[in-house]
Amino acid sequence: MTAYTPPVADMRFVLDELARLDEIAALPGYEEATPELVESILSEAGKLASEVWAPLNQSGDHEGSVLENGVVRTPKGFPDAYARYVEGGWGSLPFDPAHGGQGLPWAIAAATQEMWHGANLSLALSPLLTQGAVELLSAHGSETQQALYLAKMISGEWTGTMNLTEPQAGSDVGALKTRAEPAGDHYLITGQKTYITWGEHDCAENIVHMVLARTPGAPAGTKGISLFIVPKFLVKPDGSLGERNDLRCVSLEGKLGIHASPTCVMAYGDAGGAKGWLVGEENRGMACMFTMMNSARLSVGIQGLAVAERAYQAALAFAKERVQSQPIDGSERGAVPIIRHPDVRRMLMTMKATIEAMRALAYTTVAAQDKAKRHPDADIRARNQARVDLLTPVVKGWLTDCGCELASIGVQIHGGMGFVEETGAAQFYRDVRITPIYEGTNGIQGLDLLTRKLLRDDGAAMTALQTEMGVTLGELDSLPGADMAPIREALADGIHELSTASDWLLELGETDLPRAAAGASPYLRLLGTVTGGWLLARGAAAAQRYLTNGGENAEARQGFLTAKIQTARFYADNILPRAAAEAAAINRGSESTLALDEEFF
Amino acid sequence: MTAYTPPVADMRFVLDELARLDEIAALPGYEEATPELVESILSEAGKLASEVWAPLNQSGDHEGSVLENGVVRTPKGFPDAYARYVEGGWGSLPFDPAHGGQGLPWAIAAATQEMWHGANLSLALSPLLTQGAVELLSAHGSETQQALYLAKMISGEWTGTMNLTEPQAGSDVGALKTRAEPAGDHYLITGQKTYITWGEHDCAENIVHMVLARTPGAPAGTKGISLFIVPKFLVKPDGSLGERNDLRCVSLEGKLGIHASPTCVMAYGDAGGAKGWLVGEENRGMACMFTMMNSARLSVGIQGLAVAERAYQAALAFAKERVQSQPIDGSERGAVPIIRHPDVRRMLMTMKATIEAMRALAYTTVAAQDKAKRHPDADIRARNQARVDLLTPVVKGWLTDCGCELASIGVQIHGGMGFVEETGAAQFYRDVRITPIYEGTNGIQGLDLLTRKLLRDDGAAMTALQTEMGVTLGELDSLPGADMAPIREALADGIHELSTASDWLLELGETDLPRAAAGASPYLRLLGTVTGGWLLARGAAAAQRYLTNGGENAEARQGFLTAKIQTARFYADNILPRAAAEAAAINRGSESTLALDEEFF
Repeated sequence: MTAYTPPVADMRFVLDELARLDEIAALPGYEEATPELVESILSEAGKLASEVWAPLNQSGDHEGSVLENGVVRTPKGFPDAYARYVEGGWGSLPFDPAHGGQGLPWAIAAATQEMWHGANLSLALSPLLTQGAVELLSAHGSETQQALYLAKMISGEWTGTMNLTEPQAGSDVGALKTRAEPAGDHYLITGQKTYITWGEHDCAENIVHMVLARTPGAPAGTKGISLFIVPKFLVKPDGSLGERNDLRCVSLEGKLGIHASPTCVMAYGDAGGAKGWLVGEENRGMACMFTMMNSARLSVGIQGLAVAERAYQAALAFAKERVQSQPIDGSERGAVPIIRHPDVRRMLMTMKATIEAMRALAYTTVAAQDKAKRHPDADIRARNQARVDLLTPVVKGWLTDCGCELASIGVQIHGGMGFVEETGAAQFYRDVRITPIYEGTNGIQGLDLLTRKLLRDDGAAMTALQTEMGVTLGELDSLPGADMAPIREALADGIHELSTASDWLLELGETDLPRAAAGASPYLRLLGTVTGGWLLARGAAAAQRYLTNGGENAEARQGFLTAKIQTARFYADNILPRAAAEAAAINRGSESTLALDEEFF
Repeated sequence: MTAYTPPVADMRFVLDELARLDEIAALPGYEEATPELVESILSEAGKLASEVWAPLNQSGDHEGSVLENGVVRTPKGFPDAYARYVEGGWGSLPFDPAHGGQGLPWAIAAATQEMWHGANLSLALSPLLTQGAVELLSAHGSETQQALYLAKMISGEWTGTMNLTEPQAGSDVGALKTRAEPAGDHYLITGQKTYITWGEHDCAENIVHMVLARTPGAPAGTKGISLFIVPKFLVKPDGSLGERNDLRCVSLEGKLGIHASPTCVMAYGDAGGAKGWLVGEENRGMACMFTMMNSARLSVGIQGLAVAERAYQAALAFAKERVQSQPIDGSERGAVPIIRHPDVRRMLMTMKATIEAMRALAYTTVAAQDKAKRHPDADIRARNQARVDLLTPVVKGWLTDCGCELASIGVQIHGGMGFVEETGAAQFYRDVRITPIYEGTNGIQGLDLLTRKLLRDDGAAMTALQTEMGVTLGELDSLPGADMAPIREALADGIHELSTASDWLLELGETDLPRAAAGASPYLRLLGTVTGGWLLARGAAAAQRYLTNGGENAEARQGFLTAKIQTARFYADNILPRAAAEAAAINRGSESTLALDEEFF
C-alpha cells in the first residue's frame, strides 16, 4: 500500500509566488484568507486526506462499490471517511456564508481538492459532483430551491450528481431523450441516464440529482434541454425528508478504474415519473449545466495532477528503497538504490517537473477565477474571467493527458512490481485514465479552446496571455544565475511556436474550420506545454530573487529554492522542446490528418 | 467483444517492399518461402488467430488463470486453442528441420507472431517463451539435450520457460541466489524464482524450465551464473516422461493485465533439490540466456505492435459505428459517425501511421536476422547482424512504448465506453502495459543501445544505418508526387537530429557516462521515431513507383498505394517532428536530468 503525503511546501510555493494568494486575500470578502489560516487549512485537510482517506484507496479499489437489491454499498470505511469530511466542513470552504459556506477563495479550495483526489480519487468524486451542483443552484436556483437544498449540500449531508449522458447522447448532449412532463408545480421525469457518478450510494441521507431533460414540444438539440432538480427523497417545505422519488440505480458499470466510485445507470420514472423541479427557465438547461461543468472541468484537471503526484510519491519511495545494480560509471562497487541510475532519475524528474507545471497552471487559473469574481475593478474582473475561460479546457485537457503519461511512468519506475496490483502503482494508471474522458473528452476540450476561446474573441485572450509571458522573458534577463538564460531561451521558443500556431488557427478558422479542428488537440497540448513552462520560469525567477536578495526565510530554504530553479531548467531543456512538435502537428500536420479516404483506414 | 482481423495486406506490403522477402527466399535454405506459400501461411494462421484465439481474449481476461492445490487452470478454451496451434505446427515455422521444424524465414514467423499476439496476448506468451527456449537449446544444448527436448518443444507438445528473476534480482540479474549443487550427471537446484510466465499450466504435458542458478564457489555477479534445464517431469532416455521433478508453482501474481497468462512464483527444491542439467559450461549462463533474450525482445516488440493493431481495429470499428454530433463545418445537418470528426481522425491516423512504422521496423529487423543467418556473403551477414544488434533494443523499446501510447488513444476514441471493461478497449490498455517492462525494461534497452550498440563499435552500425537512410532521400528526390518533397524534408531533419545526437553521445560516452546514460531513453525513442519515418518513406517511394510505372497490380491497388503515401506523409508531418524534442532531451537535457540533489525530489 502506498502512503500519501500532501505536498504542502510545493502547494504553498505555487499559492504564494504564482497564484499570489496575498493579492487574493486583499480582495473584498476574502480578508480571512490569512497565511496562518491557509497553513492551518492545508495542515488539517492534509491529515484527513493522508490518515483517513488515503489508506482506503487500495482496499476501495479491491472491494469496489456493489449494487444489491437496488442499494449501492460503497467499500468498507467509505461512509465513515465521508462523514469525517462532512464533520470537518471541508465541502463548504469556498461557498456562500449565507448558506453555511466559509466564503474562502477557490485557490485554497483547489489545494485541498488536490489532497482529496490524491488521497482517494473514487471517494473524492462525490464531493466534486456535489460542488458542481451547489454552484449550479447558487447561480440558477430560485430562492426557494436555494433555501431548500443549498445548506445541506454545502455541508455535504446531501450529495449532488450530474445527469447528462444517455446511451445515444455522450459528447453529443443535444441528442438526449429523457422527458419532463409538466405536472403542477413540478415535472414528471422519465428516461434513462448512464455514467452517473455516485448516482446512488450509502454515504449520505439524500442525493440531489441534476437532470437534463426535454419538455414537450421543446426544440431539437441543445436548445431544447431543461434542467431539473430530482432528489432521491422528496424534500418537505421544512427541509425534512419525505417519500422516495421514482428513480433508481439499475446497474453499475464494470470499469477499468475508480472501482470504488459507483458509476450508475439511473432509471427515472419507471413507476410513472420522478418528481423534478425546473431550475431557471425551460430550454435553458445547457447554460445552467455549463456553470457546473466549467468548475468541474477545473476539478478534473486537478484530479490528473493529484493522481500524478501520488504516483510520483509512490515511484519516488520505491526508487529510494529498491536496490539494483551498481552505478554505470562504476563509482561504487555494490548495488545502489535505483534513483541513482540516470534513466530512473530522468523518469522521476519528468514526473516532478511536469507535476509542478500542472499544479502551477491549475492553481493560477483558479486564482484568476477568484479575481474574476471579487476584484473591485471591472476591467480586471473581465481580464481574469477571459483568462479562466481560455485556460479551463487546458487545465482539464493537458493536466489529465499528463496525468496518464505520468502515472504510466510511475508504473515503469516500479519495473515488474508496477504491473502487480499489490504495489498500487497500477491502480493510479487505471484510475487516472478516466480523467481525459469525463466532463467532456479532451477532444471536446480542444474544440472548446479553438472555437469558443480562441476564435470567438479573435485571439484577444490568447494575445493577452502571450504578452504576459513576454514580460517574464524580460524578468529572466535581469536576473543572475546560470539557469536563467537557458530557461529564457526555451520559453522564448515556446512562445514563438504558440504565437505562430495561434495566428495560423485564427486565419484558418475563417476559411477551413475542419482543418483548424484537426489541429485543436495539438494546440491544447502546445498551450499546456508552454504555459506550464512559463509558470515554472516565473517560479524559478521568484526563487532566484530570494536567493539573491534574501527574505522569506531564503537562507533556510536555499535547497528548496535551488530545486525550483533546477526543476524549471529540466522542464525547459526536456519538456518545452515538445512545443515545436506540437506546433508542427497543427499547421504542417492538419492537412494530412484529413487526407485519407475513409475506406482506407 | 472486439473482433480481430489480421492485417494481411499491410503485412504483405512490408514483407514484400521493405523486408524484401524475395531476397530472403533467394537465400540458401529458404527457397521454399515462395509468395504462394507465404500467402497460404498468413491466411491459415489468420484463421486460427481470428476464429479460435481472438474470441477467447476477453473471456480469458475475465476468468484469469487460477492456482488450485498446486495446479494452474488456464481459462476455458485455452487448452484446446493451444492444442489447435500445436496441431497446425505453428510453433515449428522457423526451426531446424532436423528437429521437426519447417525451416522457414523468421520474417514470415514474425508476421504470424503478430497474429498470435494480436489475437490473444496471454495465450501467445506460452509459445513465445517456448520459442526462446528452443533457440537457446539449439545454440547451446548438447546433442543429447537437443535430441531429448527439441522435437517436443518445437512441436509445442512441451512448452518452455525462462527463469531469471528473483525478488532481489530483477534488472540486476547478477544478484540472483538460486543454487545448483553438482550431483553426478546432473545438479540439484534450490531457490525461488518470480515472474515466471507460464511457469505452470494445463496446456502441455511437460514444461521445460530454463533456470539461472549459481554453482558452489561461482564468482559474484553475472559472471557466476550457469544455466540449467529443469523439466517439470523428468525425461527418460527414450523421451518418455518419468517422475515429477521437485519444483512447483507456489503462487500467481495478481496483475494489471494479461490475466490469462499465469505469472508464477516458482519454488525449486523444496524437497531437497530439483534435478537440473547444465547447458553449456558453468558460469556461462548469461551468454546462453542472451540467445533467448534477444529473440524474445524482438517478439515483445511485436507484442506492442500487435496489441496496438488490435486496439486500432476496435477503435476504428467504434468510430465508424458510433454516431455523435454533426460535422463541425455544418456540412451535414444530422449527427455523423465520429470518424468524420477531425480530432477522431487525428487519433486514428496517429494509430495507423505509427503502427505501420512499428511493423516496418519489426519485420525489417527480423528480415535482417534472416540475412545475417543465411546469406552466403560473410560481409553481408556481418552487416545484417550489426543491424539486428543495433535495432533489437529499439524494436523492443520503441514498439512497446508506442503500443502503450496507442492503446491509450484507442481507449480515448471509445469515450466513456473505453473506460468500461465490456468494450475490450481497456483490456488492450492494461495488457500492453507489461511490454515496456518485461524482457528487460525499456530503460535497460536504452542502456543496451547506448553502451553495447552505439559506443562499443564506435558508432559504425549507426553510421551504416544513417547512410542507408541518406540513400532514401535521393530516391524521394527522384520521384513525382506532391507528397514526396515534404516527406523527404521531414526525414532529412530527423536524420540530422539522429546524427547530431549520435555524435554527441559518442563523445560523451568517453567523458561522462552517467550523462550519456541520462540521454539513453530519449535516444532510443529518437532512433525509433526516425527509423520508423524512414521505413514509411521507403514504403511511400515504393508505392509511388507502382503508381507511376505500374506493375504488381498497381491499378487495382491504387487506393491502397495512395493510402501508403498519405500515411507516410501524415507521419512525416505529425510524428517525425518529435525527433527534435527527443534530441533536445539528449544533448540539451541530460545535464539538468542529473542536477537535482536527491533529498529535493
